Amino acid sequence: MRIGELSRRSGVSVPTIKYYVREKMLPEGERTAANQVSYSEEHLRRLRLIRGLIDVGGLPVPAVREVLAEIDAPEPSTHRAVAAAHRGLTVLTGESTDQLREEARRTVESVFAERGWSPGEDNPGIPALVEALARMRLLGQDSFVDCVSRYAEAAEAIAEIDIDLLSRRTNVADAVENAVLGTVLGDVVIAALRRIAQEQVFNRHTEGDG
Amino acid sequence: MRIGELSRRSGVSVPTIKYYVREKMLPEGERTAANQVSYSEEHLRRLRLIRGLIDVGGLPVPAVREVLAEIDAPEPSTHRAVAAAHRGLTVLTGESTDQLREEARRTVESVFAERGWSPGEDNPGIPALVEALARMRLLGQDSFVDCVSRYAEAAEAIAEIDIDLLSRRTNVADAVENAVLGTVLGDVVIAALRRIAQEQVFNRHTEGDG
Repeated sequence: MRIGELSRRSGVSVPTIKYYVREKMLPEGERTAANQVSYSEEHLRRLRLIRGLIDVGGLPVPAVREVLAEIDAPEPSTHRAVAAAHRGLTVLTGESTDQLREEARRTVESVFAERGWSPGEDNPGIPALVEALARMRLLGQDSFVDCVSRYAEAAEAIAEIDIDLLSRRTNVADAVENAVLGTVLGDVVIAALRRIAQEQVFNRHTEGDG
Repeated sequence: MRIGELSRRSGVSVPTIKYYVREKMLPEGERTAANQVSYSEEHLRRLRLIRGLIDVGGLPVPAVREVLAEIDAPEPSTHRAVAAAHRGLTVLTGESTDQLREEARRTVESVFAERGWSPGEDNPGIPALVEALARMRLLGQDSFVDCVSRYAEAAEAIAEIDIDLLSRRTNVADAVENAVLGTVLGDVVIAALRRIAQEQVFNRHTEGDG
């Protein structure tokens, strides 16, 4: 198809498509005549992936570029692709105190021990978890921090579904894409479901406060 | 305390503190002498709340302002405060096709029926869920969409913990603050725990792919 059709079908403007090509996020089209470049269904699929990560997942362009580079690598790694996506999502610019962070680290370690988890030190979830828990303590939300082990149990149930889905993929590049989307868009889905379930459970327990 | 001490203890610069006061996000300090304004522990607590929502939760300033207005309202509402926070987090700028969204809406309704959920139409989770699922379909992640009911079950387990925590608060303003932080920072905690649990479950099931 011509670039105009690719733009129409993907909902991405022609200048933006050209930008993605320049940035090597999208492969060049095939030159079919002096002034004609043709794009395939693969290009459309890639554009949808890019927009899904950016629009729904909230991933910044540099993180998308890293994720795509991993998907396109000769030996793509799910772990590295998800780590790249997650680095892009991390918004931890502020700092809590060292003491609170040390305390949060101990809480995290005791949760890991309790649940029999032994994650790698480079798991991008660990610093995010430590910082968020330190902030929770700083904000007087000790009861939340004390419940982390229960939240961890629920998170493990989610991860079981994630890995079950992932294990159905036989193609490696497919599995990597699935893992990234399941993580980035999946976080949006889980946050949305949580919001809806909260209302349900809240109404079941109380009359509501307005 | 003077503004310098408030700045040091909160880690927020003096100009930013003054900006929050101008924007009515932080109450003015008490004028104790011609050239002296004094701030209390309440100011410090409020500043930490603002920075927690912005730095860890990734909430934009206008959403924080809305949340604070709700917390400070004569009759604060948990529902409205969490809805304001969630509106601020929604990054759904892109659009999937109407047909996919219609299909996603039917999926969502069947999940609600299956789980016995009957959320209000204004629940901010619903449009986020519909759009994310439509994108998942567009990206060929049908197996994820087919598992939404399982994710919903896990989300309900999370919501049970959320509401359990919330119900321990007796003061309404406290409950509202707890609900917002539990939602905004809580999403970060759950996403982080999910990432860590994925590694755990993945290693349990496979040798890993690198």
